[in-house]
Order: sequence, then C-alpha cells, then structure tokens
Amino acid sequence: MPRTVSDGGDDVDIGSRTSSHRRTDGTQAHHGYTVTAPPKKNVLAEFSDAIKETFFADDPLRQYKDQPKSKKIWLGLQQVFPVLDWGRGYNLGKFKGDLIAGLTIASLCIPQDIAYSKLAGLPPQYGLYSSFVPPLIYALMGSSRDIAIGPVAVVSLLLGTQLLAEYDPVKHPEEYRRLAFTATFFAGVTEAALGFFRLGFIIEFLSHAAIIGFMAGAAITIALQQLKGFLGIVNFTKKTDIISVMKSVWGNVHHGWNWQTILIGASFLAFLLVAKYIGKKKKKLFWIAAIAPLTSVIISTFFVYITRADKQGVAIVKHLEKGVNPPSASLIYFSGPNLMKGFRIGVVAGMIALTEAIAIGRTFADMKDYQIDGNKEMVALGTMNIVGSMTSCYIATGSFSRSAVNYMAGCKTAVSNVVMSIVVLLTLLLITPLFKYTPNAILASIIISAVIGLIDYESAYLIWKVDKLDFLACLGAFFGVIFASVEYGLLIAVVISLAKILLQVTRPRTALLGNLPRTTIYRNVEQYPDATKVPGVLIVRVDSAIYFTNSNYIKERILRWLRDEEDQLQDQKLPKIEFLIVELSPVTDIDTSGIHALEELLKALGKRKIQLVLANPGPVVIQKLRASKFTELIGEDKIFLTVGDAVKKFAPKAVDNV
Amino acid sequence: MPRTVSDGGDDVDIGSRTSSHRRTDGTQAHHGYTVTAPPKKNVLAEFSDAIKETFFADDPLRQYKDQPKSKKIWLGLQQVFPVLDWGRGYNLGKFKGDLIAGLTIASLCIPQDIAYSKLAGLPPQYGLYSSFVPPLIYALMGSSRDIAIGPVAVVSLLLGTQLLAEYDPVKHPEEYRRLAFTATFFAGVTEAALGFFRLGFIIEFLSHAAIIGFMAGAAITIALQQLKGFLGIVNFTKKTDIISVMKSVWGNVHHGWNWQTILIGASFLAFLLVAKYIGKKKKKLFWIAAIAPLTSVIISTFFVYITRADKQGVAIVKHLEKGVNPPSASLIYFSGPNLMKGFRIGVVAGMIALTEAIAIGRTFADMKDYQIDGNKEMVALGTMNIVGSMTSCYIATGSFSRSAVNYMAGCKTAVSNVVMSIVVLLTLLLITPLFKYTPNAILASIIISAVIGLIDYESAYLIWKVDKLDFLACLGAFFGVIFASVEYGLLIAVVISLAKILLQVTRPRTALLGNLPRTTIYRNVEQYPDATKVPGVLIVRVDSAIYFTNSNYIKERILRWLRDEEDQLQDQKLPKIEFLIVELSPVTDIDTSGIHALEELLKALGKRKIQLVLANPGPVVIQKLRASKFTELIGEDKIFLTVGDAVKKFAPKAVDNV
Repeated sequence: MPRTVSDGGDDVDIGSRTSSHRRTDGTQAHHGYTVTAPPKKNVLAEFSDAIKETFFADDPLRQYKDQPKSKKIWLGLQQVFPVLDWGRGYNLGKFKGDLIAGLTIASLCIPQDIAYSKLAGLPPQYGLYSSFVPPLIYALMGSSRDIAIGPVAVVSLLLGTQLLAEYDPVKHPEEYRRLAFTATFFAGVTEAALGFFRLGFIIEFLSHAAIIGFMAGAAITIALQQLKGFLGIVNFTKKTDIISVMKSVWGNVHHGWNWQTILIGASFLAFLLVAKYIGKKKKKLFWIAAIAPLTSVIISTFFVYITRADKQGVAIVKHLEKGVNPPSASLIYFSGPNLMKGFRIGVVAGMIALTEAIAIGRTFADMKDYQIDGNKEMVALGTMNIVGSMTSCYIATGSFSRSAVNYMAGCKTAVSNVVMSIVVLLTLLLITPLFKYTPNAILASIIISAVIGLIDYESAYLIWKVDKLDFLACLGAFFGVIFASVEYGLLIAVVISLAKILLQVTRPRTALLGNLPRTTIYRNVEQYPDATKVPGVLIVRVDSAIYFTNSNYIKERILRWLRDEEDQLQDQKLPKIEFLIVELSPVTDIDTSGIHALEELLKALGKRKIQLVLANPGPVVIQKLRASKFTELIGEDKIFLTVGDAVKKFAPKAVDNV
Repeated sequence: MPRTVSDGGDDVDIGSRTSSHRRTDGTQAHHGYTVTAPPKKNVLAEFSDAIKETFFADDPLRQYKDQPKSKKIWLGLQQVFPVLDWGRGYNLGKFKGDLIAGLTIASLCIPQDIAYSKLAGLPPQYGLYSSFVPPLIYALMGSSRDIAIGPVAVVSLLLGTQLLAEYDPVKHPEEYRRLAFTATFFAGVTEAALGFFRLGFIIEFLSHAAIIGFMAGAAITIALQQLKGFLGIVNFTKKTDIISVMKSVWGNVHHGWNWQTILIGASFLAFLLVAKYIGKKKKKLFWIAAIAPLTSVIISTFFVYITRADKQGVAIVKHLEKGVNPPSASLIYFSGPNLMKGFRIGVVAGMIALTEAIAIGRTFADMKDYQIDGNKEMVALGTMNIVGSMTSCYIATGSFSRSAVNYMAGCKTAVSNVVMSIVVLLTLLLITPLFKYTPNAILASIIISAVIGLIDYESAYLIWKVDKLDFLACLGAFFGVIFASVEYGLLIAVVISLAKILLQVTRPRTALLGNLPRTTIYRNVEQYPDATKVPGVLIVRVDSAIYFTNSNYIKERILRWLRDEEDQLQDQKLPKIEFLIVELSPVTDIDTSGIHALEELLKALGKRKIQLVLANPGPVVIQKLRASKFTELIGEDKIFLTVGDAVKKFAPKAVDNV
C-alpha cells in the first residue's frame, strides 16, 4: 500500500477501508482545538519529578509498592544479594551447566591471569589471587548470569602504565604493590559510590564509538608490548607508544632477539589462532579455543623442562608463589601523598573497568532476555574490588572473552564463577610450582590471541557508514592510544565524547517546511522534494530545546533562512514573506535565554513587517512562555496547534490554490 | 475563532473559508506519501556542511560573493577595521553626540578607574592608563557603537584575588605588576584567538542564570570589600568571603573604625544613591547620576584638603603618578613559572571580560537595531588587551554602567570612546596631583553605588518563575562567590551550566500521545486532556536526538511507559497493547548506540508479541536506519509518515469508533 513519493505525483487512492469515515470536508483545520498548558504543578512536585526522572528512571521501588513490611525486608535483602532470589530455584540441572562452564573458564583464566599480571607489572600470582576472591563476592551480589569475573587485559595495562609512572616495580616492589592495592580500593569505592548514588549514567558519557577506538588501540598496544616476551628482548622500552616500541624492537634486532623464544612463541601463537578460528567457525567446537591456552602452557612448560631451553635464553616464569591470598588491608595507603595518587589511578581504572563490565552484562542479558540493574551491578562490582584490595587482588572486572566462553559453555547462574574460583584456589594451593618453567613467550602468545578479539573492525565500519563524526571520535581514541599512551587515548575519547554532546546542544538542526500537496502535513523540504513552500509564508522547524547554549544561534539561523529565502524571492520577483511560522513541536524546553532570543526575533521581524507565528509549543514551553508574558507580547492568537492551522488562518488562498 | 479545549467537546464548526476545499473524505490518511530519505551527500560535502554550520553559522563570507577583487580587499579591510566603513559617513552632527557622550563617560570613568585599580591591587594610575590605550584600539576595530571600554569592577576583583594568591602587592610590587601585565597579555590572546578561530560560541556555555548569580555575588563581595575604605579599617582581611570580611569588620569595631571616614563616606554614598535614583526615574536627568561621582571626588578632595582630615586618620589616595602610560612589553613574563601563572589567570579573566563585553554589545545593538559580529568583536577586544598589556594597562572590557550612560548621552559611534580617551590623557598629563587628597572612602562609595546595579534581582525573579533548575544554578554561583571566593563561584557557575547541558542530553523527555477526537492530530495526553489513547496501541514520542548518552534511558523509558500502561489496562480489564508507535518527529539524529537501543527495544517487544512501528523519522534518522539495515529488521512497512497513518493501518476500527 505505501507508495514512495518518487512514484510520481498522480492522484491518491480513495475508498477501501476509509469509506467508513464520516469526517466532513475541512474539519481538519477547523477542529476547534488550541494550544493549552497542562495543569500547573507546584515547585516541590516539579523538583521531585525531575529528580526522580534523573536518578530513579528505572523506578527501583516499584516492586515494594503495596507489600507487607516483612516482604519488603526480604525484597530489600534480595536487592543487595540477588543470590537469595535465584538461589532458591537452583537445582542439579543448572549446576551441571555451571560446573562445565566454570571448569572451562577456569582453564582459560589461569594462563590469562598469569599473563595479565605481567601487564599490570605485578608478580604472576596476583592475577590468580584476583580470580579467586572477587568472583565469589560477585556471585553473591551480582545480577548477571553470564559475566566471568577476573583481571582483564586493558585494565591491567592501564593500571600498569599508571603505577609505573609513580614507582619502578623492580626498584620499589613494595611501594608499587601497595599503590596497586590502594588504586584497587579506590576503584572499588568509585564503582560502588556511582551505583549507590545512582550516578551510573555518568559512564554513558563515554560514547560507543570512542570505546571501540580506545579498545582497538589498547589491544594493539598490548600486543606490541608482547613483542618483548615474544622476541625474547631483554632491554625493552617502558613506554607504550608504537614509535618507542618499534625503536626498541628494531634496535634489538641484531643481538636482542632470541630465536628459540621466537620459535616457541610463533608456533603456539599459530596454534592458538587456529583454535580460535575453529571455535569461531563452529560454535560447537568453542571448547577447543577455550582450552587451547592451558594446553599450550602445559605442552610448552613440559617442553622447556625437558630441553632446559631456559639455559638457551628462553625467559621463563621462574617463580610463582604458592598459597592462598595473603591479607593486604594494612598495605593500603590511607594517608600521605600516595593516598591521592592511588585515588586518582583508582578512579580512572575503576571507571574503565565499570564501563567494560556493564557493557558485557547488558550484552548477555539481552541475549538471554533478563534485566540487569546497572546501579546495583555497580555496587556489586565495587564491593568485590574493595574486598579484593584487602586480599591482595588488583582490579577485577568482567572479561569479554571469558564471558563469551562461559555463555557458550552453557552457564546458568553466577555459580560458574564460584566453580572457577575454586579451581583457581586449588591451583594456588597445589600446582603453582609447576608453572616455573612456563616460557614467557607462551604468555605473550596467549595475550596476543586474546586481545585480537578486542579489535572490533565490523563495528568501526558500521560507525563509518552511520556517522562520520562518530568515526572521527573512534579514530581519535585509537591513534591517541597507539601513538601517545593509554591515558592520553582515554582523555581524547572523553574529550571527543563531551565535545560531541556540546556541539549537538550548541548547533541544533533547523529545517524549512513545505506542504505535502493535498494534505495538511508539513515536512522538511530537503527530505520530501514534493513538499512545496507556501507563498508569503516561511515555515521553520527548530529541532531542539532552546537553551542558553543555542538560543543565539537559533535566532540567527532563523533570520538567515529568512534572508536566503527573501533573496531568492526577489530574484524570482515573487511576493514577499509576510508570516514566519516557527514549528515548535520538537522544542521540549526553553529557558530565559531562549525566551530572550524569541523576543529579539520578534523585534527583528517587526522591523521587516513580518509577523511571528508559533505552532504547537509543548507543555513546558507554553507554560514558560506564559510565565514570562511572551504570549502577551506576541498575542495568543499567533499560537496554533498545528502549522496547518496557522497557514489556513494567515494564507488561506495559498493552500487552497495548491 | 480559536476555542480552548476546556470549552467542551461539542462539535467543530463547518463551512466558512474551507468550503472551497476539494478534499475527498479520507484522503488525509491515504495521501500516498511515505517516508523518504533525502538525496545522499558524499562524505566530504557532509563534513564541510557540518563544519560550516558549526563555525560559520553567520555566513561571514556572504558579502564577498560575486565581488571584484579590489572590492574584496576593501571589504576585508573593513572587516578588520570597521572604522573604514562607518568613518566615511561620519559628520559633525554625529560628532556632537559623541563629544557630549564622551565627556560624560570620561567624568564617570576617571573616579571609577582610580577606585577599580585598588580592587585589582594596582596603584591608582593603572586604572587611568587602561582607560587611555584600549578605547583607542577598540574604536578602530570594534563594531559596537555604544560600548564604553575600560576597567570594570568584576574583572578587576577577579584579577586582584588571583594575583594576590601568587604575590603580595606590598612586599613584591614589581612581580605583582609584571604578573598583571602577563595575565592581561594572555587575556588578550585568549579573546583574540577565540574570535579568530570562530570559537566564540564557547562563552555561550556559561548560562544566563549562572551569570546573573555570579554578577550579583561579585557585586556583594566587592561592596563588602569597600567596608575597608568606608569604615577606615587599617587591618583588613585579604580574603573575599563574607564570613572573613564580617569577622574583620566586627573585630575592628572598637578601635579600627574611623568616624570621620564613615561620615564622609556615608554622606557621599547617600548623595550618589539619590543621584542614581533620580537618573533612573527621569531618563532625561541621567546626567546627574553620570557626573555625581566626579562631583563627589572634587568636593570631598577639596574638603579634606581644607580640613586636613587626613591627619585625623581619614585615608587618602596620597600619590597618583603623573604622566602617560610607560611601555611595559619588556615586563611581561615570557618564560619561567610565572608564564604559566599569568596564562592561567589571563585565560579565566579574559573569558569573563569577554562574556561581559559581548553581552553589553549585543544588548545595545538590539536596542539600536544593528548587527554585532561576535567573533570579530572578540578579535577587537583581544587586540586592545594585547596592546594594553604592552602599555601598562590591565584587562579592559566593556563596562555596563558606563555603556548605559554612553547610550543615554546620545553617542553615535565609537568616537565617544576616543573623546573619553583624550580626556583621560589630559587628566594623566595635567591634573593627577590634584587627586592626592581624595579620600579612599569616596572611592569606596563610588564602587558601592556602581556595583549595586550589577544585582539584577528582576532577572533572578524571572528565572525563578520560568525555570527552577536555572534558579538553582543562579543561587549556586551567587553563594559560591559570597561564601567562598570569586573563582569558586565561577567554577560553580561553569559546572552547573555544563551539568545542565549534560542532564538535558542524558534525560530527554518522552511523552504519551493521544488522538484529538475527530482529527488526525496526536498530542501529549498530559497537555491536552481531550487527547484519547487509542485502544490496543501505545504511542510514545521521543523528544530528543538519540545518542549514546541517552539511548539506554530512552529504551528503558519506553518500556516503562509500556509496563505502566499494561498494568493499568489489566486493572481495567481492557484489551492488551499490540502496537507500539514511536513518533520520531523530534528525533533529529541517531548514532550507533541509538540504533542499537532500537534493536534491543524491537527484541524486547518481540518477546511480548508487540509490534514496533515508527512514525515520521527525519532525513538523517531514516538515512542512518537504512545504512545500518534497521529498516530491514523492522520492515519498511512499519515506517509511516505520520502517527495518524500508522494508527489507520494497524487499528482502523479504534479510530473510526472515536
């Protein structure tokens, strides 16, 4: 039934279902409705509405309504510990799924943990510590069923580079570690506070495009860092930008590379990538990709042990502390200059960790169709990091690759995290000494094959197709990370995201409207070539709230539309513009600056003998126009419910003749 | 003709002008138009359009179009030096107006300059210097005809408090002065750069409400500072917050107050206020207010000289350097730590000075109906401060009180500034020694009577009536200034302004629409109580562009509307919702996050067996929905030109029955 306008201008179809209508000719414009303002609310109600909409948009107290008190307490406990809710329905069938998934992600996380702690500049056992305590806390408090908790590559790198700027981990290992725990503590506090004060929407100021660019840049930076372990270079730069790294790599080409290391690294990287490819192509074989890293570690460790390749210059892990997490609460800096340093590092790393975890939580919740409460989730993530900082863990969050494996392995609840946690505990207690001969090159290969997945070129291409400015933000963050540093790239991402918001607010769109022949519909003349301008009337639609940021621009832009139109009319010797209709439908709000701009517009039009007419002001706008007496200035008879009504009133012949 | 909806629902009037229509029954919905996308632009055109709209919204090259080259050069020179344009039409009649206005503002500015330099912590002659050079430069380059250039109270105070934080003007007068020139230089560079790079819109991020609050707070702070000179207190606090000042005032009550000083100050303050009141009541007598300060200075100076009241503890100016501005280019810090300090102070003070000057320029341009080019104006203001910093001036800008006097005295062009400048020059050369016996109390009275005008309680009341959140911003800036410091108040003003923008973007409005009976118009049910919901259909309008900042919120909000509606329907045992129509008219743009949110909405609705229908997507939106293949996902037949069309298609009976 719908025909496109380009089909041609022949007549519209009549009859069919519409014959049952009993609408008389012309009622459309003479419906008798005028613009009304909604009943006035008092100041307090207005305020509480605004606050409710801002902070409690998800209506968190909905389920408490009309419940007895005991039920309310129970619901409140469930709010904090969702395990009380889903735990009651837990059964053996679900456990089977969780057990398999938990074992699978454990096999993936153990080698990754050891590798990632190197990115953070910490001894390898700290990665394992961070995969033991935080997942347990999350299982009690978190609401995602699929997320896999533990250290992740990007946050490890970010933490590592920031800590490195303060202390050298070789010269001051103690201070370095203490600052790491301090940062983890404040990362947790930041996350929990954002959730508790319902400020979770702050992380939404980081645009999707900027995150894509940042992640891809971080992935490449991390992969480049691995060239140290992969090529067996001893004197490697501490900077992370691509130029320093490349200089370091080529500077060491003659006497720094170790061919045995390269051989081990390259062959296992090939194996990992093939396994990954198979897992991606055949969803059923995902477990091949999942266990490949642990398999590589076992085979290569055994191989190095047999051949004693470490005597040939193949770097190995050497030492992995045995035993469970030692307490670390007393190591956190609660005073002195390191307090502020730890706070600063923690806030930044915590926000990034949060962004990643929330994105993962939402993605999988959408796939399985359950709800995630962002603010509650933040409190859970924050608590787990606070507890973690007191038990020798560094910042943990949701890992995308392990969560995907968790999902595919058929996890049902957060119990899979508990299973993983127990496996990590057993590893810590029993088999850590076995990792002594694990070659660093394997860890490098595991990291490289893991972070490749962070380069989301498909999304980047979609962004390019959809929005060029967004793509620029994406590129900015990407190049910022690889050519400068992770922090710099992050800064660029934030600045571009904010600039985009501000630009959107300062330069809103306006459009010239025209009449679609034989209707009372008025549409953008650029979008609908059939829409014809009404002689003697200029119709402009303003597509944004009118605020101090854009009020001057909007006034000037409307006057420019008018000037351009008048120039054109003069060239064609057509009648002059007598009425300027401003369509206010999209204008949701106006402030004092905006009203001032309208007054100036009215004055400027008055001098040219053009009348200002407003169409369809919304509830807030009409209230404010009345409060400021602008309606009296312009005249209530200049305010119409629709553009069609205004045109019918002021240029009846123009429409009739069309 | 227009009837309000509350008149009742009786039938609409038929006939009259509309009888000439030849519209067939039902054509409205079967007009045959569907949503089309505008012709696609290529990437480059899209980019250049966006940049043009952002930076050249005023179309500055318009007048160069189709002009010969020599004319273009001439126009270009006129752009930089508007004096070349208006100078040609200058005549004796205009000069008469400018002469009188110039003399009047000179009489007002000389005492104010001396007083304001005290606010800035500089010796009194620097105020006069700053009223000599900058107005001359402005007369060549500025485009406002009414602005009066020179030092102003708020910028002087801001500069003074910031300089004081770095150096003590008594112990290190030389460094203090050099830093002042450095700050002035960078204030000028900031202003000129903003104009040159067409970034002038940045100052629009400071909301009107925040400025009102900031100015009122600054006025009270400045007035409180004058209690030192007014009460003759010697040991006065250097802090500017109201609590420190009050402590200082009461702590000195027994032995610090000087009754002779208070007598002089109070009597002349009364005189000044009465003069001001007369000038305000009778516009013709404005000159009484204008010359009152100079008269007070002359009378009080003479009185002190006669009575030698300075020996009774009445503080006097004592020394005012004779002679014209000494050069100061070599005093500006171009290296060392003071460079950064000066830069920081200059950027902040320069932005505030700019905000004030642009606001004044616009106000008077509106009153006399001529155009001010904001960016050009900034270049002029910046240049005058750069030159000023090299000729011993501190930051000058437009003074509101003197500009108003200039306007009322009948100024025609910037020549009035030249006249004022010459009078100041003569003062510097000839009569500065006469100010030796001028009591400080008089200067305090002049400042108090001048800054009272900065408290714009009428605007504050209007803000309260129109927008409560704006009023909160106003109060925040006000209390920040008076209880903490000028910088702190400014920071609060900026943060609140930005927060308001971000809030507006993160929490856009959505509205439920209903059908106005017997029309195809759909309006907000809260605003139009007559608008009735269509059974089985939920119509939601989204009132903002859908971006990463709000995409999640919009999705959740729409689902909440749906949930609330379904709860209601269930209570009333009405038929279930089958269609969700999202009216996209106000949605000007969408990004990848927004499209992703729509996909999630579609999925969530699919699970509830509700169909998603879109109405009237704009040109950019439909293009992006097509590029991302969302239109294929939802189906092109679910996208309609109007809500009415969609309702007619999916719930024909519902509308017919209404």
